[in-house]
Amino acid sequence: MAEPFRTTRLVEFHDTDMAGIMHFASFFHYMESAEHEFIRSLGYSVHSRIDGQMLSFPRVSVSCDYQSPARSEEILEIAILVSRIGSRSITYDFEVTHKDREVAKGQITCVCCRVEPGEPIASVPIPQEIVEKLQPYVA
Amino acid sequence: MAEPFRTTRLVEFHDTDMAGIMHFASFFHYMESAEHEFIRSLGYSVHSRIDGQMLSFPRVSVSCDYQSPARSEEILEIAILVSRIGSRSITYDFEVTHKDREVAKGQITCVCCRVEPGEPIASVPIPQEIVEKLQPYVA
Amino acid sequence: MAEPFRTTRLVEFHDTDMAGIMHFASFFHYMESAEHEFIRSLGYSVHSRIDGQMLSFPRVSVSCDYQSPARSEEILEIAILVSRIGSRSITYDFEVTHKDREVAKGQITCVCCRVEPGEPIASVPIPQEIVEKLQPYVA
Amino acid sequence: MAEPFRTTRLVEFHDTDMAGIMHFASFFHYMESAEHEFIRSLGYSVHSRIDGQMLSFPRVSVSCDYQSPARSEEILEIAILVSRIGSRSITYDFEVTHKDREVAKGQITCVCCRVEPGEPIASVPIPQEIVEKLQPYVA
Repeated sequence: MAEPFRTTRLVEFHDTDMAGIMHFASFFHYMESAEHEFIRSLGYSVHSRIDGQMLSFPRVSVSCDYQSPARSEEILEIAILVSRIGSRSITYDFEVTHKDREVAKGQITCVCCRVEPGEPIASVPIPQEIVEKLQPYVA
Repeated sequence: MAEPFRTTRLVEFHDTDMAGIMHFASFFHYMESAEHEFIRSLGYSVHSRIDGQMLSFPRVSVSCDYQSPARSEEILEIAILVSRIGSRSITYDFEVTHKDREVAKGQITCVCCRVEPGEPIASVPIPQEIVEKLQPYVA
Repeated sequence: MAEPFRTTRLVEFHDTDMAGIMHFASFFHYMESAEHEFIRSLGYSVHSRIDGQMLSFPRVSVSCDYQSPARSEEILEIAILVSRIGSRSITYDFEVTHKDREVAKGQITCVCCRVEPGEPIASVPIPQEIVEKLQPYVA
Repeated sequence: MAEPFRTTRLVEFHDTDMAGIMHFASFFHYMESAEHEFIRSLGYSVHSRIDGQMLSFPRVSVSCDYQSPARSEEILEIAILVSRIGSRSITYDFEVTHKDREVAKGQITCVCCRVEPGEPIASVPIPQEIVEKLQPYVA
């Protein structure tokens, strides 16, 4: 059983809406920012040069189920697992909780792409070194 | 075959990111804002008082598949259909295109809730008058 | 007396906060988006190629005074005047109102810059054709 | 010479724009979020009940001067001082730096208000206990 990458995010006032709770779209900001923290923990960056290629991971599919509201200044715990690694795509699963209360479950699928200035974005195979670093987090 | 509600949104500069395209999470802002325009076209509002109850529609599940990038100042066409009406929930389907190019397909499921100040939010049956007004848009 | 460029923006639900009103920072999104609409009305774009140079206008100074709250689904009127044109900078004044109620007054000063991929951003003189098109809006 | 409250914020990918740098309006999110962290460090919250009144601090005036771009994943240092305490208003000064490079200087003036559900928002004198806790940070 893989152990997820874990981090926290405080619900900022500007992410709440007039219903008094965190706006549903802001969960994607918090999940992406947690994902980027995870990627940095592996030694990479939002844009990383690997094997002479500048790589990035545009999203192709995302979803989120909302289980209970998140309120201003709550500290959300975010757990990330890799639910699937394809040859060119990665799917991350996110569990957002607050003190054992389930808040949201989300998913982001992204594709490994070469992003060189002046060239069209093109999908490429995920470098083996990234696959290996993600392995311990595969659900 | 139901005819969707159609509107447009221009991609604003502040919704782009350093990859040079509209950020994936901003699609949920554009879809929600189109949904609210649809609701207003039916004579309702984000918060509507119906049968003596203040009603609103918090989201319980959302998703989006990204088919091609949206770029700054493009005018996106957004088409909305109702893919499901339950007794207390509504699912909207969104198709986002730009000049016949498919950009994104999204889905938002929301629940009819009574939202009175000082009371906990509680789900309630969708009033019949809303169900009737949505009927022409059911896919 | 110069006549301002005028446009409107509806207050979107996602721009409200738990205080029940539009978040103060979102006013800068609305003002910038109105400014870009103004620029398009003159025949330009957020990034425009003029005299062989790709030009853009990064902000160097902004401010906003809040006079009354803006609420969800209100249609804000935004009036733009040019309060100053320097050799390399432009200052826009924004008046945001709702049905004759004063909502906010803002200011954005931006600098004309050459933004070529792979080169550092550098300020350049504002092309004469832009200066001439702005002239009717100078306060 | 007062010692500022200091915190840090990492520039998130979703706060960048197609110019490749942090969007100017997002600085207000980072400054407000730092301000709220400061307020929590004093024992308060975005909404605090003091002397039987629910208090909050809506903004009346804000500004920001941009000195150099902030880029994705940079860790910004934010220093906060109180530049003025009136009977009902507080002005905060923000200095945003990155490794001794000046990034931005901002200012937020807010007004002490009673915010009770169902009542109009009304300005009230700042409670003496808040004034005393802010005193060490007065510039």
